[in-house]
Amino acid sequence: MRIPILKLRDCLLVSIQWELDDQTALQFQEDLLHKIHLTSARGIVIDITSIDFIDSFIAKVLGDVIDMSKLMGAKVVITGIQPAVAITLIELGIRLESVLTAIDLESGLDKLYQELGE
Amino acid sequence: MRIPILKLRDCLLVSIQWELDDQTALQFQEDLLHKIHLTSARGIVIDITSIDFIDSFIAKVLGDVIDMSKLMGAKVVITGIQPAVAITLIELGIRLESVLTAIDLESGLDKLYQELGE
Repeated sequence: MRIPILKLRDCLLVSIQWELDDQTALQFQEDLLHKIHLTSARGIVIDITSIDFIDSFIAKVLGDVIDMSKLMGAKVVITGIQPAVAITLIELGIRLESVLTAIDLESGLDKLYQELGE
Repeated sequence: MRIPILKLRDCLLVSIQWELDDQTALQFQEDLLHKIHLTSARGIVIDITSIDFIDSFIAKVLGDVIDMSKLMGAKVVITGIQPAVAITLIELGIRLESVLTAIDLESGLDKLYQELGE
């Protein structure tokens, strides 16, 4: 199973709508980096509104994919972090400090376009 | 397996990135109609760029879901119809005559916003 990645102008949109298992998370990491390379995307919005539970492995993969995307030159906005996920992330010591966040997909896209100066 | 449906302002975005089996297609039909009801979406873009083969059952489900969405008051744009899919649709006698189409997701969204007068 793969997470669909949509291209919208020079941004990529990802909506994760079910709990990720480890294999899917790693596949997603690979797919996203490949798609950034393929499309020269400048920004990425990852919407995790539907995720209400996150474990340490998935949190790490998510943190890694953000850092990797940055290395490749793409800004990342994470949207729709649920209360329980926010609690878990902080309790796991994952602060996602340098990451842009927003309440939902629309605000995330707005924030991204603003950051990209569009 | 479910097809993710993204909400972007008053539109829904769907990107079908793998061949649909019959069960997934029916589940998608149900999910989309439910989401239209839930979000009061006025427009829908269904991107099928990644689909390079379509059979008569899936074509029928796709045609049905477009008609059903219209009944619920939402305009539908289909984007990224591949040559082989276009050939199959016409050979099957499915002309999708009243459906808006566009070459890719971006053009589809533009067309939809134009139709919705935004």
